[in-house]
Amino acid sequence: MWTDLLPIGRHPDSGGYRRSAWTGPDAECRAWFREQAERRGLAYETDRNGNQWAWLGDPAAGDAVVTGSHLDSVPDGGAFDGPLGVVSAFAALDELRGRGVQFGRPLAVVNFGDEEGARFGLACVGSRLTAGALTVEQAHRLTDADGVTLPRAMAAAGHDPDAIGPDPERLARIGAFVELHVEQGRALDLSGDPVGIASAIWPHGRWRLDFRGEANHAGTTRLADRRDPMLPYAETVLAARREARLAGAVATFGKIAVEPNGVNAIPSLVRGWLDARAADQTALDTVVTGVEKAAREHAAAHGVDLDVVRESFTPVVEFDHALRDELARILGTDTELKVPVLGTGAGHDAGILSGRVPTAMLFVRNPTGVSHSPAEFAAEDDCAAGVTALADVLEGLARR
Amino acid sequence: MWTDLLPIGRHPDSGGYRRSAWTGPDAECRAWFREQAERRGLAYETDRNGNQWAWLGDPAAGDAVVTGSHLDSVPDGGAFDGPLGVVSAFAALDELRGRGVQFGRPLAVVNFGDEEGARFGLACVGSRLTAGALTVEQAHRLTDADGVTLPRAMAAAGHDPDAIGPDPERLARIGAFVELHVEQGRALDLSGDPVGIASAIWPHGRWRLDFRGEANHAGTTRLADRRDPMLPYAETVLAARREARLAGAVATFGKIAVEPNGVNAIPSLVRGWLDARAADQTALDTVVTGVEKAAREHAAAHGVDLDVVRESFTPVVEFDHALRDELARILGTDTELKVPVLGTGAGHDAGILSGRVPTAMLFVRNPTGVSHSPAEFAAEDDCAAGVTALADVLEGLARR
Repeated sequence: MWTDLLPIGRHPDSGGYRRSAWTGPDAECRAWFREQAERRGLAYETDRNGNQWAWLGDPAAGDAVVTGSHLDSVPDGGAFDGPLGVVSAFAALDELRGRGVQFGRPLAVVNFGDEEGARFGLACVGSRLTAGALTVEQAHRLTDADGVTLPRAMAAAGHDPDAIGPDPERLARIGAFVELHVEQGRALDLSGDPVGIASAIWPHGRWRLDFRGEANHAGTTRLADRRDPMLPYAETVLAARREARLAGAVATFGKIAVEPNGVNAIPSLVRGWLDARAADQTALDTVVTGVEKAAREHAAAHGVDLDVVRESFTPVVEFDHALRDELARILGTDTELKVPVLGTGAGHDAGILSGRVPTAMLFVRNPTGVSHSPAEFAAEDDCAAGVTALADVLEGLARR
Repeated sequence: MWTDLLPIGRHPDSGGYRRSAWTGPDAECRAWFREQAERRGLAYETDRNGNQWAWLGDPAAGDAVVTGSHLDSVPDGGAFDGPLGVVSAFAALDELRGRGVQFGRPLAVVNFGDEEGARFGLACVGSRLTAGALTVEQAHRLTDADGVTLPRAMAAAGHDPDAIGPDPERLARIGAFVELHVEQGRALDLSGDPVGIASAIWPHGRWRLDFRGEANHAGTTRLADRRDPMLPYAETVLAARREARLAGAVATFGKIAVEPNGVNAIPSLVRGWLDARAADQTALDTVVTGVEKAAREHAAAHGVDLDVVRESFTPVVEFDHALRDELARILGTDTELKVPVLGTGAGHDAGILSGRVPTAMLFVRNPTGVSHSPAEFAAEDDCAAGVTALADVLEGLARR
């Protein structure tokens, strides 16, 4: 399967993938999905929101066990983020057929459209629309960098944009959704395990910190007379690291804007953005409160004004505990693997669906820990272990 | 004098002055200068580089005592930076005439053109050309933000650009140059003195520090796996402040560039610019060495690469010691003033001339310490004290 999929949308210079939603490479990936479904005699369909499905058994029977992920990519993304979950889904079905398993529930493989949000700026558009977490009106306003709206892009790719909207009937068919994904950190590499089970998607948010001081001549203004906002900013960057370490969380200052941004001018404004994520709300609150407290203290010490604005926030997504425990039982009983349970700081279609159907995730070890980059990697043995684990899970959940 | 000068080029919204070289407001300032000269019966001339002169006595006699400053401004600059030195020069001549002083040496008031360099990006163009510190070829390449070259701007303002170039004959006429300037810091305010004498223009330079780490996902990359260049940058900002404080110097990080500069991305590059100035070369070396050492240590601790590039450097300008001591003697003997001797971190025409003729500077107290801004200020009493001090100096140097 990889042989046909790997060349699609790979940039010859960067070696990274450029498979934005509703582009030519995306259409090639979709054609690949349909071919995989039809080659296996699975019932293929595209739903109203452009998600692709391949069914084994009667979709209308209900209580289906669904697995899959996405095929689109961020600009110059890696080969595994998304595709590993779809390829592993088909490979797990092949393995179960080889085992001669008989299923008591329908099975399906899914490719959710536009998971990365690289083109229209919003992630998980396919699953959001289906779950009603994105309204049709909001979707109509999504526009790419060239001014092309989502409906126009869909129409250009041959999908009817008038059909999009919530799809509760389809969701009602699903008894469990299991997404396999390459890990985007190094937890499995460090624990020495090829496969892990997700516990939750960490709560996360973005905060903008505006440090306002006084522009002045960098050559003639005594240190004691300065109100230099770069100094409390620097203290706050270090405080964020400290607070995150103490809380077992992550905190990042990756974006900054400075005015007037001149070499010989003390800045009047340093605007920094904090991205913070933690395993639970309490830990996240501790980090953000600690960072803000440090920022206020250092700003005051330098005569600098501070405004803190929360720009976005996503609460914790706890995956279904019963399903998670069942996965742990299946994998712990049926294999020799030790299967750790771990949280993740990244969003997924599974996070969107988890509010509507019992949902779980499996991670496959990524020794580089790097994500959204060609350096993202999963070893062949680990991919095989992922397929085996997914096959075990599907068998455990769906066999007659 | 101020009454006619103050409205020229003042912006109604900002209250700041916009008197860039060879613009309409600059021409108005030049007309004001000529009128002041002619009103006093002084011999007026514009030299080949567009600097204006007003002579009392025979310019050809040599060993002249020259005073003055500049009339152009940075965008939205203050009322005093430059004009205070020119106005005080005329006022000091008036005072000396009132005292009935007879002069044994020629006197002149000068307005150097394009001191701020706000339009063509190079400071002190008028004095540099005259002193041969800027070649004609270099001057021809100077271009403003609208693509207008310096020769075209000069020609448009009625000055012959073919005439520009070194002017050793004119420099040879000058026995001493004394520039009075509003202080651009708060040393006099803190010492409680209305007037001070410059010791030197501090050596200063700009260094670019490139911290190169690894871009990665801010949500999923463990702290221990990061190579985040923002962290050693922040440590270096704080180290610069610490080193400057210990050395009695100034150091500023006022400009930064970050890649990719995304909220949820650990940066791959943080590029910061250090502006550092100190009273002497040893102190400056201590600061810069200390900052670079801290930067290297913190970069290494975070697995971040560091390149340091010195982008510009100006060595110390020590004003003529004999002239400085004579000013101190004159002002210490003839007045009740305590006259402190202080260095400055800013460049001046006096700094350019000091390599060619004995040069000194007087500073007038600026209680705000703010420079290049409408908040720049000098109290009327302090301006009067400056005129008295300048008159005393001219009398002491030039009376028969």
